[in-house]
Amino acid sequence: MKSVNIGLLGLGTVGGGTAAVLQDNAAEISRRLGRDIRISAVCDAKAERAAQLCPDAAFVQDPFELVVREDVDVVVELFGGTGITKDVILKAISSGKHIVTANKKLLAEYGNEVFALAAENNVMVQFEAAVAGGIPIIKALREGLAANRIRSIAGIINGTSNFILTEMREKGSAFADVLKEAQALGYAEADPTFDIEGHDAGHKITIMSALAFGMPVDFSACYLEGISKLDSRDIKYAEELGYRIKLLGITRKTDKGIELRVHPTLIPECRLLANVNGVMNAVRVNADMVGETLYYGAGAGALPTASAVVADIIDIARLLDAPSGYRVPYLAFQPDQVQPQTLLPMDEITSSYYLRVCAADKPGTLGQIANLLAKENVSIEALIQKGVIDQSTAEIVILTHSTVEKNIKNAIAAIEALDCVDTPITMIRMESLHD
Amino acid sequence: MKSVNIGLLGLGTVGGGTAAVLQDNAAEISRRLGRDIRISAVCDAKAERAAQLCPDAAFVQDPFELVVREDVDVVVELFGGTGITKDVILKAISSGKHIVTANKKLLAEYGNEVFALAAENNVMVQFEAAVAGGIPIIKALREGLAANRIRSIAGIINGTSNFILTEMREKGSAFADVLKEAQALGYAEADPTFDIEGHDAGHKITIMSALAFGMPVDFSACYLEGISKLDSRDIKYAEELGYRIKLLGITRKTDKGIELRVHPTLIPECRLLANVNGVMNAVRVNADMVGETLYYGAGAGALPTASAVVADIIDIARLLDAPSGYRVPYLAFQPDQVQPQTLLPMDEITSSYYLRVCAADKPGTLGQIANLLAKENVSIEALIQKGVIDQSTAEIVILTHSTVEKNIKNAIAAIEALDCVDTPITMIRMESLHD
Repeated sequence: MKSVNIGLLGLGTVGGGTAAVLQDNAAEISRRLGRDIRISAVCDAKAERAAQLCPDAAFVQDPFELVVREDVDVVVELFGGTGITKDVILKAISSGKHIVTANKKLLAEYGNEVFALAAENNVMVQFEAAVAGGIPIIKALREGLAANRIRSIAGIINGTSNFILTEMREKGSAFADVLKEAQALGYAEADPTFDIEGHDAGHKITIMSALAFGMPVDFSACYLEGISKLDSRDIKYAEELGYRIKLLGITRKTDKGIELRVHPTLIPECRLLANVNGVMNAVRVNADMVGETLYYGAGAGALPTASAVVADIIDIARLLDAPSGYRVPYLAFQPDQVQPQTLLPMDEITSSYYLRVCAADKPGTLGQIANLLAKENVSIEALIQKGVIDQSTAEIVILTHSTVEKNIKNAIAAIEALDCVDTPITMIRMESLHD
Repeated sequence: MKSVNIGLLGLGTVGGGTAAVLQDNAAEISRRLGRDIRISAVCDAKAERAAQLCPDAAFVQDPFELVVREDVDVVVELFGGTGITKDVILKAISSGKHIVTANKKLLAEYGNEVFALAAENNVMVQFEAAVAGGIPIIKALREGLAANRIRSIAGIINGTSNFILTEMREKGSAFADVLKEAQALGYAEADPTFDIEGHDAGHKITIMSALAFGMPVDFSACYLEGISKLDSRDIKYAEELGYRIKLLGITRKTDKGIELRVHPTLIPECRLLANVNGVMNAVRVNADMVGETLYYGAGAGALPTASAVVADIIDIARLLDAPSGYRVPYLAFQPDQVQPQTLLPMDEITSSYYLRVCAADKPGTLGQIANLLAKENVSIEALIQKGVIDQSTAEIVILTHSTVEKNIKNAIAAIEALDCVDTPITMIRMESLHD
């Protein structure tokens, strides 16, 4: 059977990894697929690198030229970003090329447009590598769990942040120090904003949310809160109380609407997610029939991400000439069943909370705080005086039961208005991961 | 589009669950698949149960009759066992029916025959539910990791055993007591042999081994050692040394051949697998490109297992009328690429070991033991005297470095021949789960 011809866009980390996987495992892949996969054309800013990594491929300077070539069946887009990349992808689709991409930003922000054009042009778009690197979580959501109504997803889906949080906990270091270490190790970019402020995790949970609930992608609806303001004291106190702090992407279907959010989260240390350390990723899915399942692995890196890219190529290769009815739908649901749903504003989500309050160490303070929480219907699970900061100020940690977020915000505002309390109060959401 | 017609064999736990999932999630499944799934015929020993669970299906007393019906596209076999079930499956295949089965025993023992006949008759055979219940591990091995050469798999794939081991550790109870508790809770059968002696896990790891390495299934080559002889002291000592004991199914490709084995195993407590408790299952896969991935979830139970059964039905439904070239091959590799490989006898496997020796508490004993290990090239990682059993006998725990199993067996035989040592010596294999 004739080879499947790949047009490869970009030979950076993941692109180089993809070339390596296709070369090193060519025999194993053919044993599985029954045909060869061949990089027929490549586009990269560095011609020398292209000649070295893809010696048998035509080097094409202009990506718009590559995506219309006759010897390209599948365009593998590993440029990343939107801007020109988006135009290249749309042109490839219009030219009838199938797409494999690791581009979470493109899909989270413009996925609806991409999938609509793909449907019109009858091409496949696969994106396993866009979420959680080498973990086959997109396949699990689109196929493996297809018999279920999915209830919620919670994932550690940014390796940089998880590395930083792991180091902060294990060494008691401050955020800024660990960030420098992560940058030195190549785990964090020179400008780390995208990772540490939750954007990257937000793109990924937005994509998973669409797949889980059968709705269009809508990154603008995703609440983002990163880890840069985390104090190592909170990590320490959380640990003393039996919790770990992780940056989670969370999406959940509730009676009121869909929750979609990224933020630091206390989770009980006995949960598997709490024990996912370093740069590793894991995604927990709760679904009505199967219950809890969890998927763990490397969320980044050249070869793990390329593993997902090449799995997608294999999936496409298998159905290359097949009618579209044989395919798994782009967003897991049939296109006419992908329907907008109510996204809950953060004030309306339900969570429990960790609060750290610095307050005057004098009689009556705790009572005042407890009363203000009660007034907003926030009930207290635990209230612990952690120690005395200076002669007159005590540090108090409060864990609440589940409540609506606007209640806790109102309570915090009222507590902050007290003369005896320092501002701001630290607030971190908690997830039991029971549901 | 017309409905996909299911002929359902068996309405026990998983069969009942399958009927429930298809009914309760009919709308969600149609939103994904684009067509309806309908149980058109059902066969079960209990006609009343069939009428109740599948009111719209034709009740067929004779399974051989069901599998040739014109209104059946897919036969879902949930009888279990071999014997007559095997004949029914073969007849269904000969009649051109696609198969979904949860029958690990059938596939581990007769899979080669089943798949050969299926290829001849151009039908699909799906078996996600046969391994690890609701966890989509078959899909991960056949598709998600298709770009990789798989190196090893280690799984907690028998919920009954894992429940017993978890209880033994948490409560310090004896095996026999926990088994009774598990039976009372319905987690263990009246005759628990199949679960606790490793047969069930053996079936599952045999299937995964074939998928991982592209070879025929060969259950007879799988080494089986269960948990019924485990002493709670060993669980306690393991924990003191930072390990948990789990019943693992292990398969690994080495330069000398394929390891395929089920036995109690010490694993470091920091590993995720060590923290999989109760009836839950998890499978760790190590592959050359993606590295370590892990899949966790419910390994049994009506609805979780039915989740996998129905996912398989959906996969088949999507390709119902498609040519066979569009399908994922039965055993992950193209049929002509499924090749027998050398299976390593247990004497040739490589492992590290935990030994517990009761020996006379007198000078020189430890030295003698250490010398006999050295003589067989077994090097010692740790040797700890755990305590004194009675006035004259001490209990010694030894952890070895990695060695070939025949060496440790020779050393054990030599140590047991010492007058000062009680027989038998307890030997439990260890896995670092580093590779």
